[in-house]
Amino acid sequence: MKVSETFIPTLREVPGDAIIVSHRLMLRAAMIRKLSNGLFAYLPLGLRSFRKVENIIREEMDAIGSLEIKPTVVIPGELWKESGRWEAMGEALLRVKNRLDSDFVVSPTAEEAFTAIVRDELSSYRQLPLSLYQINTKYRDEVRPRYGVMRGREFVMKDAYSYHTNDESLDETYQKMGRAYRRIFKRCGLTVIPVRADSGAMGGTGSEEFMVESEIGDNTLLLCAGNSVASSAGNSVASSAGNSVASSACGYAANVEKAACKPDYTVPASIEAAKAAAVSIPALEKIDTPHVKTIEELCGFLKTDAKKFIKTLIYKAVNVELDLSKAPGCAKLVQRKLAPDAPLVYPEAFFAVTIRGDLDVNEVKLAAILKAAEVMLAADTDVERITGAPVGFAGPVGLTSVPVIADETVTAMSDAVAGALAKDLHYTHVAYGRDFSPWLVTDVRTVVAGDRCPVCGEALYEKKGNELGHIFKLGYKYTKSMRVSYLDENGKSHTPTMGCYGIGLDRTLASAIEEHHDEQGIIWPITIAPFHVIIVPIKYDGAVKTAADSIAAELGKKGIEVLLDDRNERPGVKFNDADLIGIPYRVVVGDKNLAGDTPRVEIKRRAEKENRLVELTKAAEELTELVHRELAELNR
Amino acid sequence: MKVSETFIPTLREVPGDAIIVSHRLMLRAAMIRKLSNGLFAYLPLGLRSFRKVENIIREEMDAIGSLEIKPTVVIPGELWKESGRWEAMGEALLRVKNRLDSDFVVSPTAEEAFTAIVRDELSSYRQLPLSLYQINTKYRDEVRPRYGVMRGREFVMKDAYSYHTNDESLDETYQKMGRAYRRIFKRCGLTVIPVRADSGAMGGTGSEEFMVESEIGDNTLLLCAGNSVASSAGNSVASSAGNSVASSACGYAANVEKAACKPDYTVPASIEAAKAAAVSIPALEKIDTPHVKTIEELCGFLKTDAKKFIKTLIYKAVNVELDLSKAPGCAKLVQRKLAPDAPLVYPEAFFAVTIRGDLDVNEVKLAAILKAAEVMLAADTDVERITGAPVGFAGPVGLTSVPVIADETVTAMSDAVAGALAKDLHYTHVAYGRDFSPWLVTDVRTVVAGDRCPVCGEALYEKKGNELGHIFKLGYKYTKSMRVSYLDENGKSHTPTMGCYGIGLDRTLASAIEEHHDEQGIIWPITIAPFHVIIVPIKYDGAVKTAADSIAAELGKKGIEVLLDDRNERPGVKFNDADLIGIPYRVVVGDKNLAGDTPRVEIKRRAEKENRLVELTKAAEELTELVHRELAELNR
Repeated sequence: MKVSETFIPTLREVPGDAIIVSHRLMLRAAMIRKLSNGLFAYLPLGLRSFRKVENIIREEMDAIGSLEIKPTVVIPGELWKESGRWEAMGEALLRVKNRLDSDFVVSPTAEEAFTAIVRDELSSYRQLPLSLYQINTKYRDEVRPRYGVMRGREFVMKDAYSYHTNDESLDETYQKMGRAYRRIFKRCGLTVIPVRADSGAMGGTGSEEFMVESEIGDNTLLLCAGNSVASSAGNSVASSAGNSVASSACGYAANVEKAACKPDYTVPASIEAAKAAAVSIPALEKIDTPHVKTIEELCGFLKTDAKKFIKTLIYKAVNVELDLSKAPGCAKLVQRKLAPDAPLVYPEAFFAVTIRGDLDVNEVKLAAILKAAEVMLAADTDVERITGAPVGFAGPVGLTSVPVIADETVTAMSDAVAGALAKDLHYTHVAYGRDFSPWLVTDVRTVVAGDRCPVCGEALYEKKGNELGHIFKLGYKYTKSMRVSYLDENGKSHTPTMGCYGIGLDRTLASAIEEHHDEQGIIWPITIAPFHVIIVPIKYDGAVKTAADSIAAELGKKGIEVLLDDRNERPGVKFNDADLIGIPYRVVVGDKNLAGDTPRVEIKRRAEKENRLVELTKAAEELTELVHRELAELNR
Repeated sequence: MKVSETFIPTLREVPGDAIIVSHRLMLRAAMIRKLSNGLFAYLPLGLRSFRKVENIIREEMDAIGSLEIKPTVVIPGELWKESGRWEAMGEALLRVKNRLDSDFVVSPTAEEAFTAIVRDELSSYRQLPLSLYQINTKYRDEVRPRYGVMRGREFVMKDAYSYHTNDESLDETYQKMGRAYRRIFKRCGLTVIPVRADSGAMGGTGSEEFMVESEIGDNTLLLCAGNSVASSAGNSVASSAGNSVASSACGYAANVEKAACKPDYTVPASIEAAKAAAVSIPALEKIDTPHVKTIEELCGFLKTDAKKFIKTLIYKAVNVELDLSKAPGCAKLVQRKLAPDAPLVYPEAFFAVTIRGDLDVNEVKLAAILKAAEVMLAADTDVERITGAPVGFAGPVGLTSVPVIADETVTAMSDAVAGALAKDLHYTHVAYGRDFSPWLVTDVRTVVAGDRCPVCGEALYEKKGNELGHIFKLGYKYTKSMRVSYLDENGKSHTPTMGCYGIGLDRTLASAIEEHHDEQGIIWPITIAPFHVIIVPIKYDGAVKTAADSIAAELGKKGIEVLLDDRNERPGVKFNDADLIGIPYRVVVGDKNLAGDTPRVEIKRRAEKENRLVELTKAAEELTELVHRELAELNR
């Protein structure tokens, strides 16, 4: 294709709000244009690369037997009401009323739509397992969309959903998906960090996120020091090809939301054991701590360190599914359903969470433990009502108005300090088991860099990451609330279990640019480059034109995708654009090299500095071989 | 692919609301499922055919140099306000407010989005012509969606938009699009009726609709008797291949909305000539016509026929762009703009339209003449105010409160009857030119079957049609209101002219089924069949399994798409499903034919009744040749 026949309005400058490299380069290389905040149009060059990512994903999904379908983008609100998400989802869900006043959503994800389709067709166990996917437009009404297509409002996602008669079958599909995802990212030239939730304390076996390192990532990752993830900036394709998944001796990688760590304390064998051990600790003592509210102030006041304090925080949780019928202070709470077949939840409940004073509570872990839609620190008035004291004097001793949840660290503390539920008063010599018994002991600790790897004990370090894909064992959440059933061999009705698997296409494309670029522009992995080869005639005229046309024609015949820069521009302008748009191989055709007994052209790989001369008659063949070799390596 | 590995839940029965053949068969063949009124999900089999239609369209668009881009589906409402369509479009436009209270639309068409993109990038005439397209999701909030995907709310459209420095360039792209459209429909095995607006009285040269005959079509077509469009029911592929565009000696085909006809009357040379000729007509006479209001009652009362009456109807028109500054009764009308750069319009204006009594006014023609968004019969109270009489006594004589628009037929009438603008009174001996002079003489007649072809004079006949595609010269409507400009060679600024070109993918697919089916099911044109060949083993076991697998493997290697029915079902069930889903070639593998010295299998073309035996070892080769030949014929 000739440059004059396509539409590549490259830019020198980009708007100031384009901060990250991929956003800047996608604008400059005329891959995308902004229609509105978070809404981007792909121009021809961008769409070519986008379609290649799409095809790679489609091939890998088809290869593992997932079947492509195409539900609508606009989905009946009724289905979301059945699942309970119409209420549970926040404002990021774009809700629409049509002219007949019916409710619809512009789909941000499609658990409901797929499950509704499967529900209507499923009758026998012989139809299972069933794995379906779509590659379709999604919409999330982000408040602050930014970073170009990396966090846009409208985007394209591959989302797959699978249905099974048992956990083993779900696990088999889940594993296949995981392998397909690794292949997809490898083929796109991406180094991903697979982050599993199941190596941590959560005990789950069913969630894996595929992250790329990113300075602007919305996830904090904790990686084992053994785990060496290549730095992303300025990496060439070659260095990461064949090494697309970060690996190490230990390999531990976790999202901070779920990360665990090796205990730096000793847990008593039981609460009775803790109580027995407490005989050697002085009796509980109430001390005056005037105007001392924070842990720091207490440390100064008592001249000791934060590890000796039991920090106690009052949390409010929304839509709690965990059974609270026997929890302290919860007798009067009333459950309700968000949808007819959704589980019962407590719309609002309060908890006291205790943790060793030097640590922070991880609210995602807390929400998971409570099976709550959301948790947040309680308002001051709630804290005062619950603790009977101003904010700053909460503690587990004598607290009966709400359930007390203790991080495991608290059970390992002896002779500790805690708030005394009264203004300007604290307890010293607090002992777990003797002075208080929490309703629940669990892991709600926020792991930080420097904590020990839960697998091998090495120090953990932090990186920011962006999630490109996520595979997840959903279980029965949707199939139960939406009443999906099948009959087994004996004609007995059962609910299938379910998995879901997503990849963001726009993010994957942008992340490939984040990983593969230099000062001059993009350095495409050849699998997703808009063209394989760019031919730059110094002046598109006479013998140069003839030679350029003949190479283009010969490459075209061999199935190589060629862009021919036929513009009447200075060579410098053309070279800059070729570098900017990142075509993997550049061929320069000029009078000088064509002259003489053996006409030659110059070949240069975008990822390398050096160029070399090859004979005109052999150029197409050699380029074809180079392109095929590089494609084969990434697609291997 | 094996049937057990895909998902084809075929149905015997379909819901009663599935009336038309394509809707019924798409449901029965498990191509689609309904998610809600007008919202359909494509299942794997349906999506395979859908993607083939998509690819054919993409290939033909690429072949004429149109460039694919991908704007968003959700479009900022701002752009629609600029063009004026935010106000002008009715409730079919799905409007959304996001969480920040910004306006958006779920795109029903993309003139605004494309024009906004081009506006920002266009600087020089050297960038033109520019032709861009997308294949993307659209939404139209139909009040009564029906007929399955034929008239759904969400659908996929290929829409292209082109921008030009002059009319010749626009015409060149327009012609190329027309040729591409003909190829697309031919390749999909469809017989289309190209309906041009430019052969009629409208005088335009810039609109062509591609229709298929359909009993439930929303368009009425008028075709020249010379024009023989094959009846659609039960047509086999072979009969229409190579004959995908209806043709005839004359070839005239028009939408009733725009159809013209050969005059069956003689028009006077001028209004002065008419006045002069009227000397032989008795003077105007007012007669009592008590309780006579309708044309029929008048015919009975005066014992003459409807052709002698001047029918006069009062119309209200909305957003009229035509200049009315010198029109009778319009002095006080005030113009306004629907958007800052949109043209001035009269929000509301009334007109009297006169036509020969046996004919009907065509409101689409009227709206086009007035350049109005909409025209409708005036309310009774408006009629009374304007005519000074109850409804039923309107007439052109003495009517000065609104502009009088006369259909050309009225100018050919002499000694006519017309309402006298007073209760129970009519005029006789009314003469055009002598007794009244219309503000405008034009063609607003609704052409009906039996009227004469405007080209060759043969009788016209009617058919119902569905529009699959439409190409249209838009001119400056959007480029002006959205302020698009480019600089010419001399640095002077100009507005480009524009064309738009759409094809509905879902409709195209459904129409192929409407044209190609029989009692048993679909008969796919091979180009858009979900698979080329279906292999039906009588019992998938032993030698039969081995033979079936080997044919499937060999066909697969040759690039033929094979579905292998490996289900443990009775042969009758498998045959019925094979016929229902319409795979072009069926191979039956059974013990009986495999036995003996020369093992054989049975080959049957879906479109034909007969089957024949071929040697097992030659089956794959022969099928490959048959498939390739049929593909080549349609793709030619």
